[in-house]
Amino acid sequence: MAIAYLTRRVGFSAAHRYHRPDWSAERNRHVFGACNNPAGHGHNYVLDVTVCAPIAADTGFSVDLGSLDAILEEEVKGPLDHQHINHAIAEFADGGLIPTCENVVAWIWARIVGRMPDGVALHRLRLHEDDRLSVDYFGGGREPVCND
Amino acid sequence: MAIAYLTRRVGFSAAHRYHRPDWSAERNRHVFGACNNPAGHGHNYVLDVTVCAPIAADTGFSVDLGSLDAILEEEVKGPLDHQHINHAIAEFADGGLIPTCENVVAWIWARIVGRMPDGVALHRLRLHEDDRLSVDYFGGGREPVCND
Amino acid sequence: MAIAYLTRRVGFSAAHRYHRPDWSAERNRHVFGACNNPAGHGHNYVLDVTVCAPIAADTGFSVDLGSLDAILEEEVKGPLDHQHINHAIAEFADGGLIPTCENVVAWIWARIVGRMPDGVALHRLRLHEDDRLSVDYFGGGREPVCND
Amino acid sequence: MAIAYLTRRVGFSAAHRYHRPDWSAERNRHVFGACNNPAGHGHNYVLDVTVCAPIAADTGFSVDLGSLDAILEEEVKGPLDHQHINHAIAEFADGGLIPTCENVVAWIWARIVGRMPDGVALHRLRLHEDDRLSVDYFGGGREPVCND
Amino acid sequence: MAIAYLTRRVGFSAAHRYHRPDWSAERNRHVFGACNNPAGHGHNYVLDVTVCAPIAADTGFSVDLGSLDAILEEEVKGPLDHQHINHAIAEFADGGLIPTCENVVAWIWARIVGRMPDGVALHRLRLHEDDRLSVDYFGGGREPVCND
Amino acid sequence: MAIAYLTRRVGFSAAHRYHRPDWSAERNRHVFGACNNPAGHGHNYVLDVTVCAPIAADTGFSVDLGSLDAILEEEVKGPLDHQHINHAIAEFADGGLIPTCENVVAWIWARIVGRMPDGVALHRLRLHEDDRLSVDYFGGGREPVCND
Repeated sequence: MAIAYLTRRVGFSAAHRYHRPDWSAERNRHVFGACNNPAGHGHNYVLDVTVCAPIAADTGFSVDLGSLDAILEEEVKGPLDHQHINHAIAEFADGGLIPTCENVVAWIWARIVGRMPDGVALHRLRLHEDDRLSVDYFGGGREPVCND
Repeated sequence: MAIAYLTRRVGFSAAHRYHRPDWSAERNRHVFGACNNPAGHGHNYVLDVTVCAPIAADTGFSVDLGSLDAILEEEVKGPLDHQHINHAIAEFADGGLIPTCENVVAWIWARIVGRMPDGVALHRLRLHEDDRLSVDYFGGGREPVCND
Repeated sequence: MAIAYLTRRVGFSAAHRYHRPDWSAERNRHVFGACNNPAGHGHNYVLDVTVCAPIAADTGFSVDLGSLDAILEEEVKGPLDHQHINHAIAEFADGGLIPTCENVVAWIWARIVGRMPDGVALHRLRLHEDDRLSVDYFGGGREPVCND
Repeated sequence: MAIAYLTRRVGFSAAHRYHRPDWSAERNRHVFGACNNPAGHGHNYVLDVTVCAPIAADTGFSVDLGSLDAILEEEVKGPLDHQHINHAIAEFADGGLIPTCENVVAWIWARIVGRMPDGVALHRLRLHEDDRLSVDYFGGGREPVCND
Repeated sequence: MAIAYLTRRVGFSAAHRYHRPDWSAERNRHVFGACNNPAGHGHNYVLDVTVCAPIAADTGFSVDLGSLDAILEEEVKGPLDHQHINHAIAEFADGGLIPTCENVVAWIWARIVGRMPDGVALHRLRLHEDDRLSVDYFGGGREPVCND
Repeated sequence: MAIAYLTRRVGFSAAHRYHRPDWSAERNRHVFGACNNPAGHGHNYVLDVTVCAPIAADTGFSVDLGSLDAILEEEVKGPLDHQHINHAIAEFADGGLIPTCENVVAWIWARIVGRMPDGVALHRLRLHEDDRLSVDYFGGGREPVCND
């Protein structure tokens, strides 16, 4: 069966701050710059979710979009949209992970990779923080083989 | 010789409908939702055509754009632009393939892969149905090796 | 009180066809070109709705977005999204109005102008058919005075 | 002399929260929804600054872009980029103005209108909060006459 | 009859340079900066042409797009696309007008305003030099009254 | 450690011309078309720089953006922005390389690949000449293995 790579885009608006309590104020400012400002700042994040699956002969679908959208609503928009990531997500709380684009996209991967429908492989996540910065993530390794 | 991957973008406006005559009206509605509406709906499709080829020493070209544009005009814009896909393309007629983004991009691949100029390999097609949905296609398999 | 002009964007995917049954096939083809193809074609329409209102001192709002979104969902997305305009909308049925960008935006204006919340004036509609064509509409006249 | 309307775009990433301490938690939640979440959320704001001026015969400029950019850097990007508006800007502190798109654009207008170079009139500010929402502001009134 | 404002977008790629032979090298560099570099630089210009006209009852058109496109091809793309403006256009030759965004859009206005079809008024030209700079032009005055 | 692919976007406006002095005027015109016009034309180039690196545990960074931006400013924007490539860059001088999108992106690769910070691999360059044409480059071969 022919394989297709479908990409669904979803957005969320969130705030974040970069800060390590085990570092001095000077070191935080030096390494994180304006991203260390105490109350944080924010972005209109855009996430591109690419899944890889064979095209079903009867429907012409590689994945059921209704199912995929429901997962993204529950696991991505629900917890992240209109939130301050450091305050809303336990892993990014003070002393935890820094909510960089890299860490946020890896967090989303871990959250949704096990929820893909049967026969559908999560292939790539691309998280855009703004028009000039994005991060691609393939589960932490290089571009994986699609299990077809 | 150095290899480059050149991407050319072309657009077409078309209508489509999802419907299987061998299914009940209820099942069509359940699986295809609003895409099953009888007269169809439409999109401004955007197709990104990526070819892979060595860069010619004399011209600095990987592919002659005039030739590539002529193929895309003849094989993509000609048959699809300002058309209703189910009515204009035999393979998508009633009882045939469902004109999903996956099936349309595979149809385009089959149509143009044999027409590439000498030394130019069709690498990837990416078809955008709208700003939130696109499908990548590599001939039905995974990302192929470019014959350089 | 200070006046603001707020613009909300909403999209819908629809098909349409240009055809006058009182004209010959030749004249239809001559005037309407490929837009006269029998089964129609389609677009991802984008509508920018601009309202004009004073900024409320307590909320900082010129209009309640929840209310505006509900109106646009009911009056624009509901009747038009995933539809063939000639078949779904009585005014654009065979022998009626031609569903050009001009006529569609005027139809939307008539549908929503009377539903604006108190103190909010519908100022302008801008309907984009694709990336190269849009139409602004101010109720059929020139840019109106906002009643503030 | 011929008049031109030049528009310069500048962006800033910021967080904000909607909350009135003189309202109950229930009322704040009812009116402001997810925008009332305690730590706030954020956006990649985009500001379009339109100025109106005669075109100088010797340079072909309506405004010196270097001067305009310096004003926008100092008055817009400086105070707002990578900041939480409620915490960084006194007028939007707790109990003050709600940092809606309307109030933020009016605040920017007041800050820059007096700084325009001689012969250059600030004509319009358009602030985009995201791809679906923007607000135009003409100093609180309707579109003003350009003093040429 | 109802009035519509239709906008057509057309692009052209061109080079330009800012330089006054009657100024010293120092003054040219001081006023024009990097735009004074001898061989020039370039842009993908985007022009939005807005016309104002009543909507025809029989066609639903405010303007015949085929006619408008032919004018823009002949008067805009023809002379400007893939050209160096200072070398290709007499008015912008050495010692003439500086090819700023303001002067180029005014030059286009003068070229096309007399070619509008009967009943169609040229309302506004908006020329984008890049994503951060555009100029609106209404014939050199303020927004004109549409003759309907 | 988990690997991320970060993409940074940077733009530059430049002019270029395609011409081989060892070819006749006729052959230059036949092969290069309007790109052979003597004084050249120009584009707003957009470059996407993708690097591949492990995500650092303490900062959540795959690469320090400040360092990457400094390299791109020095090696890309500095030599190319507001320049005519044939005149400003020795390799593209008359009789040298033709400044096609393929040759320009390969030139940029050679210039920056040796300047990546420790542990960061240059993965891909994507150079957009306009909205319809881009070229991906992986150092002249196919997509390389990231040395992590």
